Amino acid sequence: MAENAPAPIRMRGAGYYSEHTAGAKRVIDAAIPLVLGAIGRMDLSASAAPFAIADYGAADGGTSIALHHALIAELRSKTGRPITITHTDLPHNDFSSLFRLLHGLLPGRESLGLADLPGVFSFASGTSFHRRIFPDGTVSLGFSATAMHWLSRLPATLAEHVHAVGAEGAALAAFRAQAAADWNTILLARARELAPGGRLVLANFCIDADGHYLGWTGGRNMHATFATHWRGLRAAGAITAEEERRATFPQFYRSPAEFSAPFEDAASEVRRAGLRLEDCFTRVTACPYAEAFRVGQPAAEFARAYVPTLRSWSESMFAGALDPARPETERAAIIDRFYAAYEADVAAAPEGHGMDYVHCFMTIAKDV
Amino acid sequence: MAENAPAPIRMRGAGYYSEHTAGAKRVIDAAIPLVLGAIGRMDLSASAAPFAIADYGAADGGTSIALHHALIAELRSKTGRPITITHTDLPHNDFSSLFRLLHGLLPGRESLGLADLPGVFSFASGTSFHRRIFPDGTVSLGFSATAMHWLSRLPATLAEHVHAVGAEGAALAAFRAQAAADWNTILLARARELAPGGRLVLANFCIDADGHYLGWTGGRNMHATFATHWRGLRAAGAITAEEERRATFPQFYRSPAEFSAPFEDAASEVRRAGLRLEDCFTRVTACPYAEAFRVGQPAAEFARAYVPTLRSWSESMFAGALDPARPETERAAIIDRFYAAYEADVAAAPEGHGMDYVHCFMTIAKDV
Repeated sequence: MAENAPAPIRMRGAGYYSEHTAGAKRVIDAAIPLVLGAIGRMDLSASAAPFAIADYGAADGGTSIALHHALIAELRSKTGRPITITHTDLPHNDFSSLFRLLHGLLPGRESLGLADLPGVFSFASGTSFHRRIFPDGTVSLGFSATAMHWLSRLPATLAEHVHAVGAEGAALAAFRAQAAADWNTILLARARELAPGGRLVLANFCIDADGHYLGWTGGRNMHATFATHWRGLRAAGAITAEEERRATFPQFYRSPAEFSAPFEDAASEVRRAGLRLEDCFTRVTACPYAEAFRVGQPAAEFARAYVPTLRSWSESMFAGALDPARPETERAAIIDRFYAAYEADVAAAPEGHGMDYVHCFMTIAKDV
Repeated sequence: MAENAPAPIRMRGAGYYSEHTAGAKRVIDAAIPLVLGAIGRMDLSASAAPFAIADYGAADGGTSIALHHALIAELRSKTGRPITITHTDLPHNDFSSLFRLLHGLLPGRESLGLADLPGVFSFASGTSFHRRIFPDGTVSLGFSATAMHWLSRLPATLAEHVHAVGAEGAALAAFRAQAAADWNTILLARARELAPGGRLVLANFCIDADGHYLGWTGGRNMHATFATHWRGLRAAGAITAEEERRATFPQFYRSPAEFSAPFEDAASEVRRAGLRLEDCFTRVTACPYAEAFRVGQPAAEFARAYVPTLRSWSESMFAGALDPARPETERAAIIDRFYAAYEADVAAAPEGHGMDYVHCFMTIAKDV
């Protein structure tokens, strides 16, 4: 699940790992029919060049590897063209886990390697999807899951909240404008990279028609809970007003209308670059932690399992908001206190907590 | 300098880093004219496809980055074709440092990044050069330095020595045969990958016409010194006979004749695959540590600076020879004792110690 993937879990059984990524993997598994459908609409004999797959913002590759195996099997039933797979993410990504996975060296997951598949060549890129990653016309099929809500920059800081879902007025407008600009840039970069007739299948966090988004599908709001406990640190004198304000995710959950906007005007840059939208729908994927609680897990256990998964993708933002002049042990203690407060909250009143995924699935085609 | 590169140096100034890699970088800088010469003999207008550079066994990329900048500048003066650069190494390589270097995020070396060069796209691969890495005909220029002495498997263990340079009889024959087989495999893989008219520029460790090789150019023999101190641990009862025997580098320093052999018979697999040898010569690159001692560095300082660089690339082999049933602290203590003995040896009798590099430089062309 891209930049906000759970950190690699060490020293625990495979079941623990699977539980942590079950939700993200379910999202991607739901994209498999879209990817196979896209292949079905492509003329695979139009080129003898390698069939190039890109996985944008792939993190450690674990949640999409089943999709790639399904995709390769489908391609192999239809064409003998060599296949390349390039996993991309930011330079500080855990490429070490990615390479171990791809080369069948990840303990317990050896069979998921791609290295022994004939005619399949795997690569990685450390270039952000906010930039050009591949030369013109060299990508056959691009895929990305749960990555493009990360903006290229933080357009505003929020004193009263930690996420754009809680922004208002000028701050919200700044986030919205940044998200629109980034989306345009992302699409124009992909338009250059895609080969004629190529496809892009995306599963991005969104705000759906019910106003739901990651961590809010009618119960307790995850981002509001973050904000409450972060403000609590300020109220307790543990952090400064500046630290309170700085804690803001450089993220935006676009609506389906915002995702679709660049495709609606035939004169838009994106349409003129040759992209058209084939398919767009939203889907909620239930939080596996909340599910376990609903079927009888004790509240304290739920809290103890659930909060670390939030921490795995949110901690670096909160830690980064603290004054770097504080000693590292002091910063660590503040962050521990923050997540302990969240965990105590969940344990005391577990009902409604959870992190359901809300995604917008899109298939985009490049003109032949 | 590939798999045996110094580990990334942290918490020390840039001068320390440069000193550690000065020798390996000098070797690669000597290859720059070969690479530019190869470009000069290629028809860059024969294809509009991206000009694809491969750096095989590139480690953290630090020692070859100047070569790539020179290469890109030369290409840009001649063609507008997009350029891709793919650094390859084994999956457990330090790809994190590599990506930070390529994206201009390595402290003190920001200007060496490639990410902002227009029309340049960088990738990495975790596939061994003993296998196919790229699809057929997609590499324009391959480069590799100080990497291909690593064999695909250890063909024999040596009771009396730690390196094939000290092997005799059947063991030497086994190393020689493995090296010949691996060299053939490496060349056939590259022959498939190279585009018509493409070039391969290699700087590999070798045994030269004087019988010299890495760590032996007439003075104290580095590998024999390793063997002496490893046997010393056995004599002192610190390691078992089995551990003594297991410590053997899976490496072979080929002679120029062995490097050239596959090119001499027009009916060889390599020639039939379209490769021909354009150029082959050997060169000794002086050990920067021994040089510092010769110009006046005190013996103890020389020993303290020199032995850690040996340790950086040899430690994993020696540590791997120890019985995994020993507690980790015990294994660490044995390895510390081993390098302490080497360091005491150098401090007591510094004359003749040093690790001069002995390389065979080759330029290989793929038929048009």
